[in-house]
Amino acid sequence: MNILITNDDGIRADGIIELAKEISKYHDVYIVAPESQRSATGHAITIHNPIMVNEEFVDDKIKSFSISGTPADCVKIGIEALFKDISIDLVLSGINNGPNLGTDVIYSGTVSAAIEGFIQNKPSIAFSLNEFNVSKEEYAKASKYASKIVNNIEDKLHILDDGILNINIPIGEIKGTKITILGEVKYENALEERINPYGKRYFWIGGKVKNLEQHEHSDIAVVQDGYISITPVNIDMTNSKKIDILKESLL
Amino acid sequence: MNILITNDDGIRADGIIELAKEISKYHDVYIVAPESQRSATGHAITIHNPIMVNEEFVDDKIKSFSISGTPADCVKIGIEALFKDISIDLVLSGINNGPNLGTDVIYSGTVSAAIEGFIQNKPSIAFSLNEFNVSKEEYAKASKYASKIVNNIEDKLHILDDGILNINIPIGEIKGTKITILGEVKYENALEERINPYGKRYFWIGGKVKNLEQHEHSDIAVVQDGYISITPVNIDMTNSKKIDILKESLL
Repeated sequence: MNILITNDDGIRADGIIELAKEISKYHDVYIVAPESQRSATGHAITIHNPIMVNEEFVDDKIKSFSISGTPADCVKIGIEALFKDISIDLVLSGINNGPNLGTDVIYSGTVSAAIEGFIQNKPSIAFSLNEFNVSKEEYAKASKYASKIVNNIEDKLHILDDGILNINIPIGEIKGTKITILGEVKYENALEERINPYGKRYFWIGGKVKNLEQHEHSDIAVVQDGYISITPVNIDMTNSKKIDILKESLL
Repeated sequence: MNILITNDDGIRADGIIELAKEISKYHDVYIVAPESQRSATGHAITIHNPIMVNEEFVDDKIKSFSISGTPADCVKIGIEALFKDISIDLVLSGINNGPNLGTDVIYSGTVSAAIEGFIQNKPSIAFSLNEFNVSKEEYAKASKYASKIVNNIEDKLHILDDGILNINIPIGEIKGTKITILGEVKYENALEERINPYGKRYFWIGGKVKNLEQHEHSDIAVVQDGYISITPVNIDMTNSKKIDILKESLL
């Protein structure tokens, strides 16, 4: 297959380099990734600034570019411009530095890149590692699992005709793979207020994930338990359940 | 009600000022808005930089802040910090400069702010005007419609317990209001390639909306026809339809 790979941690992140090298053993790999860290960008696209492009070297076999845009920009520009003469069969995003689980996927640059792939009518998969700042070796190991999933799905890509797969890989011993639903994530103390040297208030967004009870089939529960989680995710955002009641109560 | 208002066009945009003034005739209004233009930011949050806060003057009755963050940041910081001692009853986002219709809502900063309100367990509504760069008077007129909808929904806020309302208001003569589903938006020539004075390629994301046939109950069709469109939108992103087939084919 011709596979476009991107991420939100930037083109120099171990996660994308290890994934691209592993996938390139079986497929032709093309990279367009942000030139710097772009996590928590949600589904942002860059419309108020031009997007600069740089050719990069990742590996002899892999044609690579970095851009001054978001993960969604990378996929758009990869498919519609930089690699428009190549028929891209699959879009991969990751492997992300840290999990993209549950309701948090709405903030995820990694997942948004895969969703942009879906918007561009390409089968798309997001990969994340359920731990922050681990070694290159952990990404290499996770990439082998990712590559197996990619090779396994190669002749079933029609499954991805109405959404993407969001895949989270735990570190340590892998017990197996489960198909999951998105769990629920809530934060406590999500904002830290500070005062700068000139007396002005400012905030950092952060906070600790609350320990909520999770559905046993949720991505969060399954990854905690040592399984790879595969969640089908889509962007059918109309809340159809509410159409009738709104007609009755608002019109 | 205590109503938090934000937007993605920034605190000096006519859309938020006219909306806030109109709503403040009936309710207590609190503003947290980006200090500058933040459209097409999707559901981004700011985690790699501190978020600066400035007190602003919009109107005697309206307590207002601008921040160096995204629309989703505004809602988070408004509810959890700047106005944490006030029980916010409703979050409004807008009125946006231009439409937020159909599948394009995934890119929308305006809609993302309302979705952040929903994540914060607040009833939330996004308002957009279906035309770019119109006069202050058009926003004042649209604000009267927005205000009517807000007053109408005041005793039915439980409708917004599982998602937000995405409301688009046409300019010109308003024929009425319809409850809609999200239509489909596609672009042609979405990327414009240029060369800078130093010979380097860069891109602008833009493009023309394709003229697609729309479902008669879609937001796009209804607004084109001169009606206010109210679409219930949620973020239940698990693609439940695909769970079984994935279990069969991948495990």
